[in-house]
Amino acid sequence: MGTANFSRAPNLNNLGDTLYQLIEELYPVRRSLTGHGNRKTLNLLNQYIPIELNEVKTGTQVFDWTIPKEWNVNTAYIKDSKGNLVVSLQDSSLHIVGYSVPIHQTIPLDELKKHLFTLPDYPEWIPYRTSYYQENWGFCLSHNQLLQMQDDIYEVCIDSSLEEGSLTYGEYYIQGQTLDEVLISCNICHPCMADENLSAIAVCTLLAKHLSSFSLRYSYRFLFTPATIGPITWLALNEKQTSHIKHGLVLTFLGDTKPFTYKKTRRGNAEIDRVLAHVLQESEKSYQIIDFFPYGYDERQFCSPGFNLAVGSLMRSQHGTFPEYHTSADNLDFIKPDNLAESFSICWAAIHTLENNRYYLNQCPKCEPQLGKRGLYQGLGSDGNQRAKEMAMLWILNFSDGEHSLLDISNKSGIEFDTIQRVARLLCEYNLLREVE
Amino acid sequence: MGTANFSRAPNLNNLGDTLYQLIEELYPVRRSLTGHGNRKTLNLLNQYIPIELNEVKTGTQVFDWTIPKEWNVNTAYIKDSKGNLVVSLQDSSLHIVGYSVPIHQTIPLDELKKHLFTLPDYPEWIPYRTSYYQENWGFCLSHNQLLQMQDDIYEVCIDSSLEEGSLTYGEYYIQGQTLDEVLISCNICHPCMADENLSAIAVCTLLAKHLSSFSLRYSYRFLFTPATIGPITWLALNEKQTSHIKHGLVLTFLGDTKPFTYKKTRRGNAEIDRVLAHVLQESEKSYQIIDFFPYGYDERQFCSPGFNLAVGSLMRSQHGTFPEYHTSADNLDFIKPDNLAESFSICWAAIHTLENNRYYLNQCPKCEPQLGKRGLYQGLGSDGNQRAKEMAMLWILNFSDGEHSLLDISNKSGIEFDTIQRVARLLCEYNLLREVE
Amino acid sequence: MGTANFSRAPNLNNLGDTLYQLIEELYPVRRSLTGHGNRKTLNLLNQYIPIELNEVKTGTQVFDWTIPKEWNVNTAYIKDSKGNLVVSLQDSSLHIVGYSVPIHQTIPLDELKKHLFTLPDYPEWIPYRTSYYQENWGFCLSHNQLLQMQDDIYEVCIDSSLEEGSLTYGEYYIQGQTLDEVLISCNICHPCMADENLSAIAVCTLLAKHLSSFSLRYSYRFLFTPATIGPITWLALNEKQTSHIKHGLVLTFLGDTKPFTYKKTRRGNAEIDRVLAHVLQESEKSYQIIDFFPYGYDERQFCSPGFNLAVGSLMRSQHGTFPEYHTSADNLDFIKPDNLAESFSICWAAIHTLENNRYYLNQCPKCEPQLGKRGLYQGLGSDGNQRAKEMAMLWILNFSDGEHSLLDISNKSGIEFDTIQRVARLLCEYNLLREVE
Repeated sequence: MGTANFSRAPNLNNLGDTLYQLIEELYPVRRSLTGHGNRKTLNLLNQYIPIELNEVKTGTQVFDWTIPKEWNVNTAYIKDSKGNLVVSLQDSSLHIVGYSVPIHQTIPLDELKKHLFTLPDYPEWIPYRTSYYQENWGFCLSHNQLLQMQDDIYEVCIDSSLEEGSLTYGEYYIQGQTLDEVLISCNICHPCMADENLSAIAVCTLLAKHLSSFSLRYSYRFLFTPATIGPITWLALNEKQTSHIKHGLVLTFLGDTKPFTYKKTRRGNAEIDRVLAHVLQESEKSYQIIDFFPYGYDERQFCSPGFNLAVGSLMRSQHGTFPEYHTSADNLDFIKPDNLAESFSICWAAIHTLENNRYYLNQCPKCEPQLGKRGLYQGLGSDGNQRAKEMAMLWILNFSDGEHSLLDISNKSGIEFDTIQRVARLLCEYNLLREVE
Repeated sequence: MGTANFSRAPNLNNLGDTLYQLIEELYPVRRSLTGHGNRKTLNLLNQYIPIELNEVKTGTQVFDWTIPKEWNVNTAYIKDSKGNLVVSLQDSSLHIVGYSVPIHQTIPLDELKKHLFTLPDYPEWIPYRTSYYQENWGFCLSHNQLLQMQDDIYEVCIDSSLEEGSLTYGEYYIQGQTLDEVLISCNICHPCMADENLSAIAVCTLLAKHLSSFSLRYSYRFLFTPATIGPITWLALNEKQTSHIKHGLVLTFLGDTKPFTYKKTRRGNAEIDRVLAHVLQESEKSYQIIDFFPYGYDERQFCSPGFNLAVGSLMRSQHGTFPEYHTSADNLDFIKPDNLAESFSICWAAIHTLENNRYYLNQCPKCEPQLGKRGLYQGLGSDGNQRAKEMAMLWILNFSDGEHSLLDISNKSGIEFDTIQRVARLLCEYNLLREVE
Repeated sequence: MGTANFSRAPNLNNLGDTLYQLIEELYPVRRSLTGHGNRKTLNLLNQYIPIELNEVKTGTQVFDWTIPKEWNVNTAYIKDSKGNLVVSLQDSSLHIVGYSVPIHQTIPLDELKKHLFTLPDYPEWIPYRTSYYQENWGFCLSHNQLLQMQDDIYEVCIDSSLEEGSLTYGEYYIQGQTLDEVLISCNICHPCMADENLSAIAVCTLLAKHLSSFSLRYSYRFLFTPATIGPITWLALNEKQTSHIKHGLVLTFLGDTKPFTYKKTRRGNAEIDRVLAHVLQESEKSYQIIDFFPYGYDERQFCSPGFNLAVGSLMRSQHGTFPEYHTSADNLDFIKPDNLAESFSICWAAIHTLENNRYYLNQCPKCEPQLGKRGLYQGLGSDGNQRAKEMAMLWILNFSDGEHSLLDISNKSGIEFDTIQRVARLLCEYNLLREVE
């Protein structure tokens, strides 16, 4: 494939199903901030893209932070005094509080309860909890499970390791025609949730796979990192590289059935903000655009004041605002192939717009050029298509003064971006337009 | 007359009738892009203003365009096989497609139909068509006429000439106190339509006639040109002169009964834009103000990116949006004397505002000047008029900091521009105000 | 007291009553543009603050104005031919037109009427009139009084003096940590009205008294002057000082029961404008904010174009818009202790915001600092208060880029200013934030 085929709305067969199947495959892998599960996750993505695994050693200083110990867990369970399994890691990766230190002892229920987390309002769901930066241990279980636990002495076993090791993140870079790059980032630290992390991992992976077959203007960098410490690590180790990042998106919660939310960059009027506003509007779906605020996902780091990168965030459901958030109810039933495919399409259209949103200079800026003598303008009897093309020519020629991008012209004129960019190419062929370097 | 009498709302007797009568006189003249009809039109205007006729030779290069051949037509008709006149140029100048090449032959109806243009939706109206830049021929007729034409062999005769000659345009320049100029432009290329072209020609002519008797701050340039190629020609031949153009208006469709539409300059916030917004608002008529777009009338050329002049467009009905547009129904019944007079008044008020919209400097800017000791402020027992004058003084003095024009002050204060400019003159007399050069 | 106790909402016992009692004490004093009553008024304020009395001699030139003669009045009355007192200054200071020249003569009612002022629409009220800059004399009385006056010869006596003397104004300056100052201004020239002048005098005086016990960032200048000529005089004599004025408020009409009106500075977006908008909004009272216009109170002088100081105006009722304005009905019943106290609180909150509205720089601007390792962030089980504090930290850290003040951050985040400024202090203690000099 080449640029000529790089269309705004790719017609990929069974895209939703492909995305969904990738999520199903990744779902059982036990992920955390660090550890083997994260490596396994990234290696599974290697089926699609030649992702590069980076290992950053425990203790490495990354700005104000330090790479933590690596955590792995083999088994974890609670048994009653008769030896019956009450809670077992085998049943769900969510049962263990992330980064729980190893423990093996017997304790009465009263004491154990200080280490048990449930959701009384959703008694069938298991919550998701971690304690990355304070050593602790604990179990998460459904409230119904807790209610069934008798006043007994329980055997608690966590066979985990919290040791020198490394933090693992994945990176995939597509070299474009320029060093200017588009950053696309997702997280790989949440175990056993489908919309959280996996939906975005799947969309990122397939975006990367399909983009890699085109000749692209921008270079593209896909990051698959654990939350917070991940982007901090990448930014600390690649600080110089950040000057190349012209646009970026943090992706999350892309598989559920809610309308889209686009959270703007801290800058508030970056090109990526205008591109997403445009693409969402052209999608004719309902959506909302919200201002940047300094909590949420990894935009917190990319948009910290020392970087202030043009990175926005695309999501459907929003962080912390729906009951299934960070629970066992964010499972494979919570996401749908069609919604995944739709999310992919919005990202694709945004990238397509970025690729084609250029600035041109009218080469014949004094009065209109005579389109007719070039066969670009028909007088008597032109049809609707031709009229629309002529209108696009007039808009492009008039506003190609080096200060209006094609997207600006599309917005001003109300003419679809696709038409605008196709007609701009045509005018270039006739030497009526020249791209601004 | 002198500046002192140059009032905002001129009380000209029978203005509407005068405008209408001029249009009646011009209506039968056969106009086109070039040709004798255009010369005759301009010569008729010589009754009112000493208009200068310019002739630009066929083949002259004007930017991307070339002055076309001159077209004149003597007779044109279609006769059936029995010699009956079916269509005759004598009945309406619209019957011939503008710039039709000469032809004299007999052809069957089927073949003739490729050269016939009608309006099936308005079967009694004749459309207006031209083919300036592609050699062709044709006839326009009412759809009812077409329906009556039998399957027959027709004699088609167009006795026209398309030859080396010239393009004719008219220009009238009023020298003001400065070289800064106001451009007012209308078209002279449409035959046999009243609202299209003639309404604007009449308003331009009478504006020019009446303005010429005043001592004016700005110079005024009135252009009477064929559409598109006309302003392109003028701009190409007078490129250096364009730096003097500070404000401009393209006038069109000024005789019909629709509310006013003002189309802003490409700049979008030029002084002429603010002046028209103000004048239309003070008129207390309904109106709309729309953004610039790069199709319509000759603002396309004046506002091309290489010039980007501060030229807006005033109209009532809008280009292409009403059924009578470019048909025989745009006739003398379609326009009204009262509406012509109202259009004149809006233009006049705009010019009056431009003439008087100056920047001043308060000569006593630290605290208020003591108006009372100059007799400008009455304490006990001042009446409403005096109070209004005092209020205008306070507004003008406070905001005459060199950054607010009188129009800005009128807009800020809600005080009529006329009051503001009269009070400003008064304050100048008392040396409390001085004009910014 | 010190800065630590300088809270946004001071809990002062019986504040409203204290303000009201001060007004009661000042109410009977006979004030005018100049004269002994003004000195007495300022001396009464000396109970609260060591106010400095300034005397500026008659004839002194202050910009375009001249200090007028000093006016004092001993007695003034009208008697009928039988010697009955009809109007007596003893009954109300309003009975005499301010600056009336001395007179003692007998005149018939017809002639006397030219010097009598009443309010026919409010027949029980006495109007307030002055003739400062045109020598004249007159009496104000209720319309009912006038109706009872028979066709008679009246003895008119005004025992006043209009002589060389001085204009008196009061000034109180609190030295802060910087020379940058906040100007707070009120008038002292209205006799026998409660809302006009006295409400603002009382609020100014108690603001000054309470502020003086704190360690303040800004210096504060309180001006108690006659209207118009007072601030003109101060500005003329202290022109160089004006460069230190960073923020200012003209206070008036603070005791009535109307919602607040804040009139913006001429600049329109000064910090004081944003502070008042914020404080009024946080007050959850109804209020309106209006643009600057060049009439009203002493903002006319502070905001004249030669100074254009950042001085806004706070009031409840608005100048000239309510029937009691400038009449005997603006009396002690027209104002309420609670409303006075509320006005004081708004001013106090505004000052508190100004004092604390600083710009900071995040000292750890690349990615988020790790709050957890400093004990500033709790993971599992933080309560609502802690969560709110963490949120404030994120907002402050992200936007402390030297371009957003704490007030901007409060507005952006929707977090109360008080929380924002307390958390900013905390972050300073942890060296995560440093004030921009």
